[in-house]
Amino acid sequence: MTNPFPFSAIVGQDQMKTAMILTAIDPGLGGVLVFGDRGTGKSTAVRALAALLPPITVVQGCPVNSEAPQDCPVWANVTDHTTTERPTPVVDLPLGVTEDRVTGALDIERALAHGEKSFEPGLLARANRGYLYIDEVNLLEDHIVDLLLDVAQSGINTVEREGLSIRHAARFVLVGSGNPEEGELRPQLLDRFGLSVEVASPNTVEERVEVIRRRDAYDRDHAAFMAKWQAEDATLRDAILAARAALPQVETSDEILHDCAHLSLALGADGLRGELTLLRAARALAALRGAGRIDRAHLRDIAPLALSHRLRRDPLDDAGSSARVARTVADTLP
Amino acid sequence: MTNPFPFSAIVGQDQMKTAMILTAIDPGLGGVLVFGDRGTGKSTAVRALAALLPPITVVQGCPVNSEAPQDCPVWANVTDHTTTERPTPVVDLPLGVTEDRVTGALDIERALAHGEKSFEPGLLARANRGYLYIDEVNLLEDHIVDLLLDVAQSGINTVEREGLSIRHAARFVLVGSGNPEEGELRPQLLDRFGLSVEVASPNTVEERVEVIRRRDAYDRDHAAFMAKWQAEDATLRDAILAARAALPQVETSDEILHDCAHLSLALGADGLRGELTLLRAARALAALRGAGRIDRAHLRDIAPLALSHRLRRDPLDDAGSSARVARTVADTLP
Amino acid sequence: MTNPFPFSAIVGQDQMKTAMILTAIDPGLGGVLVFGDRGTGKSTAVRALAALLPPITVVQGCPVNSEAPQDCPVWANVTDHTTTERPTPVVDLPLGVTEDRVTGALDIERALAHGEKSFEPGLLARANRGYLYIDEVNLLEDHIVDLLLDVAQSGINTVEREGLSIRHAARFVLVGSGNPEEGELRPQLLDRFGLSVEVASPNTVEERVEVIRRRDAYDRDHAAFMAKWQAEDATLRDAILAARAALPQVETSDEILHDCAHLSLALGADGLRGELTLLRAARALAALRGAGRIDRAHLRDIAPLALSHRLRRDPLDDAGSSARVARTVADTLP
Amino acid sequence: MTNPFPFSAIVGQDQMKTAMILTAIDPGLGGVLVFGDRGTGKSTAVRALAALLPPITVVQGCPVNSEAPQDCPVWANVTDHTTTERPTPVVDLPLGVTEDRVTGALDIERALAHGEKSFEPGLLARANRGYLYIDEVNLLEDHIVDLLLDVAQSGINTVEREGLSIRHAARFVLVGSGNPEEGELRPQLLDRFGLSVEVASPNTVEERVEVIRRRDAYDRDHAAFMAKWQAEDATLRDAILAARAALPQVETSDEILHDCAHLSLALGADGLRGELTLLRAARALAALRGAGRIDRAHLRDIAPLALSHRLRRDPLDDAGSSARVARTVADTLP
Amino acid sequence: MTNPFPFSAIVGQDQMKTAMILTAIDPGLGGVLVFGDRGTGKSTAVRALAALLPPITVVQGCPVNSEAPQDCPVWANVTDHTTTERPTPVVDLPLGVTEDRVTGALDIERALAHGEKSFEPGLLARANRGYLYIDEVNLLEDHIVDLLLDVAQSGINTVEREGLSIRHAARFVLVGSGNPEEGELRPQLLDRFGLSVEVASPNTVEERVEVIRRRDAYDRDHAAFMAKWQAEDATLRDAILAARAALPQVETSDEILHDCAHLSLALGADGLRGELTLLRAARALAALRGAGRIDRAHLRDIAPLALSHRLRRDPLDDAGSSARVARTVADTLP
Amino acid sequence: MTNPFPFSAIVGQDQMKTAMILTAIDPGLGGVLVFGDRGTGKSTAVRALAALLPPITVVQGCPVNSEAPQDCPVWANVTDHTTTERPTPVVDLPLGVTEDRVTGALDIERALAHGEKSFEPGLLARANRGYLYIDEVNLLEDHIVDLLLDVAQSGINTVEREGLSIRHAARFVLVGSGNPEEGELRPQLLDRFGLSVEVASPNTVEERVEVIRRRDAYDRDHAAFMAKWQAEDATLRDAILAARAALPQVETSDEILHDCAHLSLALGADGLRGELTLLRAARALAALRGAGRIDRAHLRDIAPLALSHRLRRDPLDDAGSSARVARTVADTLP
Repeated sequence: MTNPFPFSAIVGQDQMKTAMILTAIDPGLGGVLVFGDRGTGKSTAVRALAALLPPITVVQGCPVNSEAPQDCPVWANVTDHTTTERPTPVVDLPLGVTEDRVTGALDIERALAHGEKSFEPGLLARANRGYLYIDEVNLLEDHIVDLLLDVAQSGINTVEREGLSIRHAARFVLVGSGNPEEGELRPQLLDRFGLSVEVASPNTVEERVEVIRRRDAYDRDHAAFMAKWQAEDATLRDAILAARAALPQVETSDEILHDCAHLSLALGADGLRGELTLLRAARALAALRGAGRIDRAHLRDIAPLALSHRLRRDPLDDAGSSARVARTVADTLP
Repeated sequence: MTNPFPFSAIVGQDQMKTAMILTAIDPGLGGVLVFGDRGTGKSTAVRALAALLPPITVVQGCPVNSEAPQDCPVWANVTDHTTTERPTPVVDLPLGVTEDRVTGALDIERALAHGEKSFEPGLLARANRGYLYIDEVNLLEDHIVDLLLDVAQSGINTVEREGLSIRHAARFVLVGSGNPEEGELRPQLLDRFGLSVEVASPNTVEERVEVIRRRDAYDRDHAAFMAKWQAEDATLRDAILAARAALPQVETSDEILHDCAHLSLALGADGLRGELTLLRAARALAALRGAGRIDRAHLRDIAPLALSHRLRRDPLDDAGSSARVARTVADTLP
Repeated sequence: MTNPFPFSAIVGQDQMKTAMILTAIDPGLGGVLVFGDRGTGKSTAVRALAALLPPITVVQGCPVNSEAPQDCPVWANVTDHTTTERPTPVVDLPLGVTEDRVTGALDIERALAHGEKSFEPGLLARANRGYLYIDEVNLLEDHIVDLLLDVAQSGINTVEREGLSIRHAARFVLVGSGNPEEGELRPQLLDRFGLSVEVASPNTVEERVEVIRRRDAYDRDHAAFMAKWQAEDATLRDAILAARAALPQVETSDEILHDCAHLSLALGADGLRGELTLLRAARALAALRGAGRIDRAHLRDIAPLALSHRLRRDPLDDAGSSARVARTVADTLP
Repeated sequence: MTNPFPFSAIVGQDQMKTAMILTAIDPGLGGVLVFGDRGTGKSTAVRALAALLPPITVVQGCPVNSEAPQDCPVWANVTDHTTTERPTPVVDLPLGVTEDRVTGALDIERALAHGEKSFEPGLLARANRGYLYIDEVNLLEDHIVDLLLDVAQSGINTVEREGLSIRHAARFVLVGSGNPEEGELRPQLLDRFGLSVEVASPNTVEERVEVIRRRDAYDRDHAAFMAKWQAEDATLRDAILAARAALPQVETSDEILHDCAHLSLALGADGLRGELTLLRAARALAALRGAGRIDRAHLRDIAPLALSHRLRRDPLDDAGSSARVARTVADTLP
Repeated sequence: MTNPFPFSAIVGQDQMKTAMILTAIDPGLGGVLVFGDRGTGKSTAVRALAALLPPITVVQGCPVNSEAPQDCPVWANVTDHTTTERPTPVVDLPLGVTEDRVTGALDIERALAHGEKSFEPGLLARANRGYLYIDEVNLLEDHIVDLLLDVAQSGINTVEREGLSIRHAARFVLVGSGNPEEGELRPQLLDRFGLSVEVASPNTVEERVEVIRRRDAYDRDHAAFMAKWQAEDATLRDAILAARAALPQVETSDEILHDCAHLSLALGADGLRGELTLLRAARALAALRGAGRIDRAHLRDIAPLALSHRLRRDPLDDAGSSARVARTVADTLP
Repeated sequence: MTNPFPFSAIVGQDQMKTAMILTAIDPGLGGVLVFGDRGTGKSTAVRALAALLPPITVVQGCPVNSEAPQDCPVWANVTDHTTTERPTPVVDLPLGVTEDRVTGALDIERALAHGEKSFEPGLLARANRGYLYIDEVNLLEDHIVDLLLDVAQSGINTVEREGLSIRHAARFVLVGSGNPEEGELRPQLLDRFGLSVEVASPNTVEERVEVIRRRDAYDRDHAAFMAKWQAEDATLRDAILAARAALPQVETSDEILHDCAHLSLALGADGLRGELTLLRAARALAALRGAGRIDRAHLRDIAPLALSHRLRRDPLDDAGSSARVARTVADTLP
């Protein structure tokens, strides 16, 4: 069993890395949608981030990774209260997955015949307190995406069948990847992801050589490679933990609120989720940078991630969404 | 568990709020259809209205929220007649819901084998005396929408399978949201909603800042925020209860009847449900405003809500339906 | 439980009312198809007509409303032969209904295991001796419409499964409503309805005010309203009963036969069902009017109802079918 | 129970009547396909012809109407060998019929558990020695039509499931009706019907009046009407029986064979079924007319019925198929 | 029970008859695909050829027609080793057939519960050592065609379900008929048939008269007709048996190999199956003609049958495939 | 039972043969996709390569071909630890295969009732340590292809149902064939195959004659033919085994890394899998050629195989992908 590729050793892809780090600081940001070419390490990055985070403490045998025995769901019937440490879970959602497999399945017949142990937890249970990764989210059936976004927002998975009802905590960060060439996401769904980033293959020889070199070293000289990069990962982990602690104290001025509204209006972003996410992500970024208050630089840096997937398509404007956000940011928040 | 966002703290969206308040005064108005952008707080508003209304008294264990033991359906087999108070229910209808889940399921095998307890009540039972909210009603299957509108109109849910027949009260206000960009509703269905409103994201910076500010306060300073707005909610609740009591005494002159007919004819609205709803909604509005009789101002204010979803599309008239209603109101009821 | 809206209190819609009255005089006419706008009271009218007719005498517990014990089907196993009176049944056919629900279901397993009581009667059993109403018949599946028209014509419902065969009387008048904008009916099916009428919302203010006024009175001053109109309904009932008795004696001259053929030929109506229905409906109209023989006035009045749904579409003639029938009647039967 | 409308009392429609009579003389001709307007009495004619034919002798209780006990299928387990007379059967094939219902169903489970009585005969069993009528054959599923034509040709119905195999005689004349406006038949299928005719509503007033008059008399003065026409039916029956007896002796000259080939070649009819049917039908017609040998008049009269449904569509020739056949007959067989 | 129509009595259709005869000499040629009009006797020809061949010796009760007891599959549990003679089997593959019916069905439950007799052989078992005829192969589902071609090539039918595996010999000649107007075959599949021929209705009066005359004689004077033609069939049978014996000794020169390659290259036939089949079919033809070695005449005669279904469509060349093959043969093999 | 056609006796097709040999040296290269005409021996080549490789040692009765008893999966319950030799497995994936058949099926009911032996291994188990061949991969359902590529990459097959989880080694080389004319592969999938080659029918007479000659000899003079070519196969096997041993020592210079990156950038290949595969395949090629380090010649030779299926379609460049790769190689790595 080899270690996952270190998060810090990923070459470039700064926006994607920033977005993922922010979800580690404020998991309530609402998930990350990563658009772009295949082979750009999206799945690798999620796994790497989870491996970088400190392990979580869980009650042994609890199907939803509860931290304390009292948090274990009743139906799980957990009697052994010893706890253990476990890596932050990363759960893959395979294409073609059934709803039962996602939410867990309630076996009515068994429940009626024998009582309690009638719920078979699903992927949402395993993802609690971790990451749920969906490759090619645009190929997933709409009703599954709806379900995931609903649970991701409420943090609770409820399964109901014929009057029986099971609930359990399902707090996870949703990371979806999509290739815009293979089928678009409904705007209704796009809007419910907190942040979006575009990734592309590196386009300089040096960067590409660096990728190959690191990958080759990882494959052929594993121990030395890990030793070098795990130190960098540790530094990043400490910064994330510090930012989590500082988050509630970050201040927000009225000017910043006006900036958020101005920017969203100028962009014609639908609805209000955009500016709320902008504010919240800027606050997490401020915390990561050790700032006591949000300033315009935080907004400027985070606006493309928070807003570009919420624009209406403008047939008269050839520029992509990110470029339109960047241009408007430059005009609105000089 | 936090409190829902207060109804009074919703910024703007006056038509939507008025429409919802009128259904609280006269639940027979026939439901509200809310068109418009995502992220404009439609779902929030329904939940907020229900939270504002006084709790309802229900027999404990009655699956249809009956007020008195004699109202509990026989099949529910309720033997404990103590009553309790409960918030006005708000039931969400998920996309992809099955008919069994909506109406309740009659288990023929169990019924034949063991007798009574063979009906598993559905969402309609839970919605009795409350609200049923459908997000993206245009994505719901037609036969489910038909069923909901039929039950909403009759107030009775009947489930029949192979000669067995179950009925229970299902009086609820239907609130549907729709995004006209994602599939239209059949005119046949549009007509059966009592009122319709269009909502949009606020388009001034001040309004948007106010939205963010209130949301931020709600998230970060919950107790103070709730204290301030619950007082406003209480005032509104009292006005609704007063209007409910006054409703039967509101007078209707012959001139008002002529105005209703003139307006509908001038608009070329299909059928007669439009003017009947117009009359009934105007009466509820008069009651809310403490007026003893309907006057033209009530008609003028309520006409766009009661009529704009009943117009035939006019390919030669670019204006939207609401604008056409407003223009005709101005011409017809000067 | 309030009374249905009185048939006589329906404002305007004379053709629809005439067509329905004729089916009450001669139920063999083959059903009525009502085209037109929603909200024009089609369903209300069927229910009102049924409520106006004298109650029918039925054997208690007979699932097909038999008048005499010997008419009860064997499979119903009716042992109590007391009779009772019941309003003329009106059965609604819901969209999406299954064939089993319409015809009744034969439970092979139960039949083989336990013998007789293996047939669960369907909607056709309940409709016997009454009305079967289909809203939006153009949205019903073709095979269900075929089945209904077959049974309506033969008066017998036969259910066969794996060699078992159940039959019962199913004599009812089919009333279908259709909105031509939502999908056409196959000509094959159109032809099998006896009469067709088009209804539209009233287009004068006075008529519309009268509709609202009556509806308002019905809702708010129920007892007085019913008292007034039930008297008018009684007069109509007596006329219908008298016409039923007179029908076999109404005479038909050779000139009338020629008129029927001339008219159908001039219109190019497909097949011969048109002129046969024209003759039969004219005879019922003559009986209603107390005439001893059919005359041209009867033909003229009834021709649009009997023929307009049987014309081939004429791309060079802009006029609707009814107008073409009226024009040809004027030319042919001066 | 009234008698069916007499075959002789059908007004006009000579080709259809001739075609049906020929199938009564030589049931091996391969069925009749009737194209044309609805309401032209196709179904009435089949029933009338069957009623005109002498009753058939059948073993009581035999599910395939066998004439002699030794012909009853073994699986039917017929032990009572008394025979009885029964009208020639006419079986209707309803649209949407399942294959099991047509061929009969073999119940594997019951067969294995209890032995013989495991086959539930279908419509093909009931149609043996009679007529199978399909209304709107162009709306029937292709695989059912294939199956019917295969059985009609071989005279044997074979049902096989998991190694069990049931066979029974299924000799019947297939009569299909089709409306060419509602979906065409595959040429592959057209070719397998023996004869085709086109019917249309009568287009003179006198004929139409005669139709109405006869129908009216049939409805209102049943006994006298039947007495008059049953005598004519008896004459026709005698002619048919005589022709059946004379058929094997009808002679066929080489010239006639050449005429058949010439005609088919000149018409470019696909395949060879056309001229074989032409020969066979001409022979039946000769027998009906009491001729000892086929002559050109027989060919001329029968050619449109035997060939017009076998022509390839000719986009440069506006004339219908029958007209093309008639023209070619006039040219080829002067 | 009448005898099948004699193979020798088929008028014309020389290519089809040659192709079928060659498969009787070398069953490994890979099947025959017959394109063309309906009614040209394709099915008749297969049945006639099988009836002409000498009967095969089979172990009684063996479901795969094994010649010797040791060849019977174990699962068939054949204990009686007496042998009998049986006509060469011809199995029809009905449209809409299921895979289970083709390959045989493995009953897992019965296998686990009771052991051996859990395989229900299918059509492939019955076709072993004979012919499998598919009418309208272009209407068969692709996966069934794939399956048939795979088994036809390997000579073994393997059925696997959940780890159980059944095999039996399934050596048969596949004869498919197709009407190119009703849906094309995938090139992938075309290529896997060994030979193809086109048939058409005879286009001279004399030939057509001869067809009718023979058919008429077959129907009306059966015994004499059979006596005459069975002698011709016997002569052909002897020639086939002699050719089978001579086949391994037929020599192939290098020039012939070059001719095969030249021809295929010149035609641009895809892949190499074409020239391999050409060689093999030419060898069978040489054997039939009693030649000791393949010469150019054999290639010339057989090339259209072996190659014309393997050409890519050439949009600039109006000539059909056979014409292109013939032209290229004339150029290449003068 | 005849021997498979020898790998060395395949005429031409050098790229395909090289690609297959490289996967035998480094099975981690990620599979081979072979595009091209039917009948070019793709399936033959896979079988031939597997037959050429030395047999593998397996524990008798182990369903996943484990080399040592401790590698047998627990669920297989293998108690007999004797080992045996077996040819390298080649498993065919039939079109239309179900997921259960591919991955193996977990029988929940049996598992719960009886314990262990509840997993029925699938095709992936049988393919372990060998080859999995998919003919016409573009016709396979996407979710099966996804699954295969996932397992091929991880080397582990995991089957999970309702909380039960089974894993086993599934290390195999995937070889897919595709005909680009019959439906394209998603770029997402193309990218996950390691190497691609195009094959075509030989286009010289000499080559084609050689193919026929060898095939003919193989069929008609089997023993001598095998004796001759198996010696050549043995030489190739030795070279492969030597290359496997040398692989870890092959050196990679920085220049080579830059060459890989330059080439990929110049080609605009998506993602980074291209250059990583290029590097790895070049290393295997170097080992096969006995070189101690990768040089440009290796890159040049292998680039078309590693990169041409990863190019974006360039509508302005008519040349096929391979030509574009070759041209860019010539420019970039002179």
